[in-house]
Amino acid sequence: METQTVQNKRPGGRSAAVLNSVKVAVEELVQERGRERVTIPMVAERAGVNPTSVYRRWGDLQTMINDIATYRLDPSRPIPETGSLKSDLTAWAREIVEHYRNPTNAALLRGGAASAGETESDCTRNRRAEAGMMVQRYGTASPITPDEVLDHLVAPIIYRVIFLPWTLDETTADSLVDVLFANR
Amino acid sequence: METQTVQNKRPGGRSAAVLNSVKVAVEELVQERGRERVTIPMVAERAGVNPTSVYRRWGDLQTMINDIATYRLDPSRPIPETGSLKSDLTAWAREIVEHYRNPTNAALLRGGAASAGETESDCTRNRRAEAGMMVQRYGTASPITPDEVLDHLVAPIIYRVIFLPWTLDETTADSLVDVLFANR
Repeated sequence: METQTVQNKRPGGRSAAVLNSVKVAVEELVQERGRERVTIPMVAERAGVNPTSVYRRWGDLQTMINDIATYRLDPSRPIPETGSLKSDLTAWAREIVEHYRNPTNAALLRGGAASAGETESDCTRNRRAEAGMMVQRYGTASPITPDEVLDHLVAPIIYRVIFLPWTLDETTADSLVDVLFANR
Repeated sequence: METQTVQNKRPGGRSAAVLNSVKVAVEELVQERGRERVTIPMVAERAGVNPTSVYRRWGDLQTMINDIATYRLDPSRPIPETGSLKSDLTAWAREIVEHYRNPTNAALLRGGAASAGETESDCTRNRRAEAGMMVQRYGTASPITPDEVLDHLVAPIIYRVIFLPWTLDETTADSLVDVLFANR
């Protein structure tokens, strides 16, 4: 019997184990079946937990998938700081492309996209925040605005991940950054 | 009793009426409830048709939503042909932005995004084809490649529609085209 409250942040012990097994189950199922054919009872069964635990933590499947998609790339990981904005953005964009070349990560992003657009809490918000932070480090010395990074680096990567994932390769990040910095 | 086969293309009479009432029902429900809370029985009830008709035509809900999202902007409409690639792309991009500033169209795009990534038959494929066609009209005189239109015009619009729809306005299309043609 579960009497413990599942915490929102960094739960320890039993809740952490439940949370982790649910995440793994969602990732496996979204990858195996596609987001549309995954249900909460299916996730609970695969994770070996009571569906009630899943409903209590996330409320519904879409919130769960968005949440897992959002934190799939750890927002507290170190962000490149090389002394040059162009190099920072190149290293960062290479990491994003590599991350999403993994089909499970791409499938979770598509699942998150399905519930985006209502607020800024969509599953790509941490990428926008990271891009903004890197640009702002250079203050008025930055030749690039956060909106330009959004439109010409984040957007083309995310568009390709969602719709044309097979077109992403190890040159994608560098080519996009080169265009962004051309004539600057 | 339905004995008629529902045709794939331009069905007439009763099938056309069924198809149209199903489309209207899907559009209304996706807009009212969000794609995640729409089911085929719900669509059939709203459309006043038998769920069997819906399953027979589309197989599943995700295929239906992708199909409706794909043809929501008629791919046989006239594409701007002004004699200048920059003006063609500006007029075309303005139309796309206006189309997706409609919340129902944006919600259908998000629903389509959820099932993209397996093949090139995603719900934005007609936009890519149109962009490619406009560029190719100008042959070797085009200063822009189809991939550049994809990365720097289609992708930023679609990213914003999915994740940040409130940032689209009547300047979005022109600004993106200006960047695309800067220094060309």
